[in-house]
Amino acid sequence: MPIQKTIQKIIAKIKEGIHPTDLAELVDELNDQQRKELFELLSDEEAALIIQEMDEMDQISLIRLLTRHRASSILKEMAVDDATDLLGELSKDEVKELLSLIEDEAEEIKGLLRYREDTAGGIMTTEFIALPEDIPVDEAITRLRELAPDTEIVYYVYVINEQTKLTGVISLRDLIAAANGTLLEEIMLRNVISVPVDMDQEEVARLVSRYDLLAVPVVDEDQRLLGVITVDDIIDVIEEEATEDIYRLTGTGDVESVDILEASVFSIVRKRLPWLIVCLLGGLLSGSVIGAFEHTLQAVVVLAVFIPVIMDMGGNVGTQSSTLFVRGLATGEIKRKDTQIYFLREVKIGINMGLINGLVIAVAAALWQGIPMLGVVVGIAMFATIFLAALVGTLIPIIFNHYGVDPAITSGPFVTSVKDITGLLIYFYTATLFMQYLI
Amino acid sequence: MPIQKTIQKIIAKIKEGIHPTDLAELVDELNDQQRKELFELLSDEEAALIIQEMDEMDQISLIRLLTRHRASSILKEMAVDDATDLLGELSKDEVKELLSLIEDEAEEIKGLLRYREDTAGGIMTTEFIALPEDIPVDEAITRLRELAPDTEIVYYVYVINEQTKLTGVISLRDLIAAANGTLLEEIMLRNVISVPVDMDQEEVARLVSRYDLLAVPVVDEDQRLLGVITVDDIIDVIEEEATEDIYRLTGTGDVESVDILEASVFSIVRKRLPWLIVCLLGGLLSGSVIGAFEHTLQAVVVLAVFIPVIMDMGGNVGTQSSTLFVRGLATGEIKRKDTQIYFLREVKIGINMGLINGLVIAVAAALWQGIPMLGVVVGIAMFATIFLAALVGTLIPIIFNHYGVDPAITSGPFVTSVKDITGLLIYFYTATLFMQYLI
Repeated sequence: MPIQKTIQKIIAKIKEGIHPTDLAELVDELNDQQRKELFELLSDEEAALIIQEMDEMDQISLIRLLTRHRASSILKEMAVDDATDLLGELSKDEVKELLSLIEDEAEEIKGLLRYREDTAGGIMTTEFIALPEDIPVDEAITRLRELAPDTEIVYYVYVINEQTKLTGVISLRDLIAAANGTLLEEIMLRNVISVPVDMDQEEVARLVSRYDLLAVPVVDEDQRLLGVITVDDIIDVIEEEATEDIYRLTGTGDVESVDILEASVFSIVRKRLPWLIVCLLGGLLSGSVIGAFEHTLQAVVVLAVFIPVIMDMGGNVGTQSSTLFVRGLATGEIKRKDTQIYFLREVKIGINMGLINGLVIAVAAALWQGIPMLGVVVGIAMFATIFLAALVGTLIPIIFNHYGVDPAITSGPFVTSVKDITGLLIYFYTATLFMQYLI
Repeated sequence: MPIQKTIQKIIAKIKEGIHPTDLAELVDELNDQQRKELFELLSDEEAALIIQEMDEMDQISLIRLLTRHRASSILKEMAVDDATDLLGELSKDEVKELLSLIEDEAEEIKGLLRYREDTAGGIMTTEFIALPEDIPVDEAITRLRELAPDTEIVYYVYVINEQTKLTGVISLRDLIAAANGTLLEEIMLRNVISVPVDMDQEEVARLVSRYDLLAVPVVDEDQRLLGVITVDDIIDVIEEEATEDIYRLTGTGDVESVDILEASVFSIVRKRLPWLIVCLLGGLLSGSVIGAFEHTLQAVVVLAVFIPVIMDMGGNVGTQSSTLFVRGLATGEIKRKDTQIYFLREVKIGINMGLINGLVIAVAAALWQGIPMLGVVVGIAMFATIFLAALVGTLIPIIFNHYGVDPAITSGPFVTSVKDITGLLIYFYTATLFMQYLI
């Protein structure tokens, strides 16, 4: 049977020592029935290693294919933070049932489930090594040898005092380089960089990236060590946050919360529609500006020819300005204190780009339509639109950021609507002023 | 003197053990004269630690402030990969002069300078630990103790055979957990994930992120170990590449190559202008479509009122579609084999969003202007524009990707122009067809 063959092939690859990530990809190709059969043949440990590497959606459907008893045995073998993430996506009843079967790790998982998914607590693991300050290096190494198999990381050893407060950190490299009798407190680094348990994951990622850390300890308000966040989870956060920013900056919506390949057409439409509706209203408002100048347009229909170029250019400049500011904030290149300098320079950039493009379009418009005054009108409108787009494109995200709203969401439809309306107002107002020379 | 005071404060912070990254930030506030004075007071090692954390631009200007002799002493203390990156930004003559003073590390740096900046070779370090297969664990640990201070990483030990070919890897954790007499070849992992020296840095980053690695070895075509890339450099690559994608997707241009806070107004304008010029031409082309239907517009001026909403909606949908595809490719969520399925689903999404928004705008237009047939025209145009924008927004990046051009650059001005022109053509063509009912 071909089904059996596929499964045999996967089992053979496991024996060869294939990486769990690659295995998870092979499992991805199987249907539910095949997955069920395969997992019945695997040990709990093998199953746990593969599930950890699967997408959340696939994890959930797989866990639901198995008996409660089997599912709980596999969960027990998973890294505590991965097991917690998976349980976080299940229904309350399912979680309760599974946790009652897990016993040992249940308390730990319950503790972790309390934290919000996008905070330090939500991404930390509780499988770390903490040793007391007053033991010598050789004893520390002996303890590490015993503990290592059960912990996720051992390249940093955290040191705690009698109140379990975090007091220091030693890299494994410094530990093995130190003389045997030395006490940990003599060689540990005391300025430990740690994060509070409720810190936003984006901030944690910025810290880890800034200080080139491999892991960062998580502490409560009394500086007691609660868990550790490893750099591989930080990489996931950085990619997730970049995707979120990209979607927001381009007005794509909240799509990162669904699996873009497998989600239904309906669910994707629902995620993308809200930004389109904002855009629709903005477009109608811009249209009403044109409507207000209907008599001007009636008299000089050729004015309509330059509506697209004025809208497009304003749109491009506005998006450029807000993108640079929002991304600069996200990467930490622009700090809060730099906002004013940045804004002033952006105004200068806007003036320059407005002058250059205004001049080009003025000449183009005058020659194309053979009406010199039309060139003047279009040129003035272009200058003003670009200048205002640079100004608005920077100012709106600055204001949103000031009030704690993610500035990335402002960049798409908001900036578009504001610069469209102002650009068209200026264009038609200028045209009305110069009316007598245009007809 | 206040200058002296600032410098004294920084020196005091160094004594307190402040992190070099934070120190670099303090140095950032100083002017050239102050920086020069400060660095004259620091040891070569202290200076190297700080310089490594500074921006490239600041590194260069600082190195040029110092004597050649001093600069070379500091370069000697820096991590080889950081020293290479810095030298890569200097003139050929400067590099030659500095390398002649460095001696020992000069050959290593010269070797690294050969590799392209955005490849595995360009971001790897040559300071790694490689041990032979046939030594026992205790000897390996003794060697590590001697070597550790001079290497950047010791959490993976790479194992090589007599031909210096990479044959295995052992994590420090497995090493200390193993019994003393065991040979390295008995405990090493043989399926080492390694990258070729000319692999693009983005691909390296994807691999490290996929397999949750802390470091990845770099090999030549004969599988000889050349260097190691550490995860902190991978994080920088991921952030860099995300920024590049964001700038390209939003039509912001090649701005990531300059320091956005300190670059001159002129240099930023020059980077942003090319996209604006593409946009200008696209806008004029769209305008010529309106020009071609001047008689239609002359007869029914109210048609102009819906130009903005049709352009904006097409723009938003087109950007959404290309953003989702381009980002999906970048994160690996969409693979080449998925392109067709993805495209077909996007077509369905386009039809659905077109129908919904077409209906809404049709009713709105009919009621607003009191001309039922205008609703029909605007509704049809809206449906066709959104449908085509979804199609074009996905198809253009697919085609560019197929021919090896970064699809991110297509998203901004290109998609904008194509959907503007098609959208306006459909709108005015439909209006011309229904002309008799509109007047």
